[in-house]
Amino acid sequence: MDLNEYQQQVSHAVNSYLVDVIERLPEHAPQLKQAMRYALLIGGKRMRPFLTMACGEMIGLKAADLLGPAAAIEAIHAYSLIHDDLPAMDDDDLRRGQPTCHIKFDEATAILAGDALQTLAFEILCHCELSDKTQAKRIDLVKILSQAAGYSGMCGGQAMDLAATNQLIDQQQLESLHSKKTGALISACVSMVMALTDDVSTENNMHMQRYAQLIGLAFQVQDDILDVTSDSATLGKPQGSDQALNKSTYPALLGLEQAKAYLYDLHQQALQALHALPYNTQMLESFTDFIIQRKY
Amino acid sequence: MDLNEYQQQVSHAVNSYLVDVIERLPEHAPQLKQAMRYALLIGGKRMRPFLTMACGEMIGLKAADLLGPAAAIEAIHAYSLIHDDLPAMDDDDLRRGQPTCHIKFDEATAILAGDALQTLAFEILCHCELSDKTQAKRIDLVKILSQAAGYSGMCGGQAMDLAATNQLIDQQQLESLHSKKTGALISACVSMVMALTDDVSTENNMHMQRYAQLIGLAFQVQDDILDVTSDSATLGKPQGSDQALNKSTYPALLGLEQAKAYLYDLHQQALQALHALPYNTQMLESFTDFIIQRKY
Repeated sequence: MDLNEYQQQVSHAVNSYLVDVIERLPEHAPQLKQAMRYALLIGGKRMRPFLTMACGEMIGLKAADLLGPAAAIEAIHAYSLIHDDLPAMDDDDLRRGQPTCHIKFDEATAILAGDALQTLAFEILCHCELSDKTQAKRIDLVKILSQAAGYSGMCGGQAMDLAATNQLIDQQQLESLHSKKTGALISACVSMVMALTDDVSTENNMHMQRYAQLIGLAFQVQDDILDVTSDSATLGKPQGSDQALNKSTYPALLGLEQAKAYLYDLHQQALQALHALPYNTQMLESFTDFIIQRKY
Repeated sequence: MDLNEYQQQVSHAVNSYLVDVIERLPEHAPQLKQAMRYALLIGGKRMRPFLTMACGEMIGLKAADLLGPAAAIEAIHAYSLIHDDLPAMDDDDLRRGQPTCHIKFDEATAILAGDALQTLAFEILCHCELSDKTQAKRIDLVKILSQAAGYSGMCGGQAMDLAATNQLIDQQQLESLHSKKTGALISACVSMVMALTDDVSTENNMHMQRYAQLIGLAFQVQDDILDVTSDSATLGKPQGSDQALNKSTYPALLGLEQAKAYLYDLHQQALQALHALPYNTQMLESFTDFIIQRKY
């Protein structure tokens, strides 16, 4: 199976899973339910579910055991996008070429949909199918996801991002910000997979964690570069929005050419981390190339 | 120990616990951390922690095993208040006589503080002290809290409340709304206590669940009555704000006298549920009287 096929397979599986979870909710708050569904299905690369499934299957875990964690992490990601797009935050009207949740519905519904999707992620981890061997690891999944999503991870990183707007920060600070804002959740994909197995050595676990950190960072650098070099139609959101918000970015900090060189370097390091593993890493290599070469 | 002493003891224990959790967070997002702390400590009756501790101690559980669940539920409550007060929701500037979180800080910080406090609740459940006997119940606590906080509980109820604003709804709909908006979290206090023990019979469990439902509802009816009969200084928020927002309330639906009669009836039923229990229910009886006779 090539990358494209596997990506489609993961997207399809995770979308079905999430739609099924939403459709099983009772009807007492129909607009909230619609907004949750809308935000979950607005598109996206499903990068986090892909990473979860691909890492897990690579080390021999069953797809059925990975779907819950993959869906839970996507629910956290979807909630964070809703809240980030709000007028008081980044004030974005478009996301992946579609109206953002507060434009499609209203602000109050968008706030609540984000809140309820965060909770839903933990509900999914409590109720998802896990084989007998991994049942006892369920609480570890909650531990990893909550740590990655909260103050120590994504929320804290978003707060750092807000504080850094209109400020001069250095590369170390920018890296620290991104390691929390986007990196923590990407690393959580790998950590959740590792929590489900006792069969991966400490050393291989470290290589995989390092890989997750590197592509998390590379993803962000490429995002910043695309914001400068791409166009709004391709991005599905206004090109130049980082600059418009006066946000610290890699091109702003390093210059565009240096940012590209840095991205190249991260790409190589990520591939090296994969090469150190005793597994068939072909899918993850293709994925790494995709993350770095993507146009949107 | 009388009610007042025990309430102070619970408040002190839960406040210390929450302050300690917040202070152990790293310093990378100082304003977010301050906002989380502010929202947690803005005051309040600590009704949910009280109920958790009092129910748990009544059936013989150790206070140390109850503190984590009590703090987690209070973190969910605090997050919900921050988001409910936002301009896009109830647009309240005052809460318990203090500026609300988005007034004290700013809207973006308030949204994030709410988000991070929700996550913190689940982090607390993952990391709180639990004696060996109850370790395996940790995931059940997450299950109960997430179910109570999300679409099926509090978030769904808040969405129903928004949908009911400027609408005529009947008593059954109002009851359904409140059973989710405030009732679910109050019931979760009792459910979490029940999850930590195997020693309570199904019948007694049912009496306790019924008690939780009744005081959850009574709390709300009294809240609605106070909004009409009290004054802003006593309430710590603008008197008449439900009416100003054109919200469905018990006095609006039943008339003030009928609403008071309904409250009296709920009070008696709650006491009956306690009397059916083979435990020393004195503290919970005093608490029931307090909830119903409170002036703020």
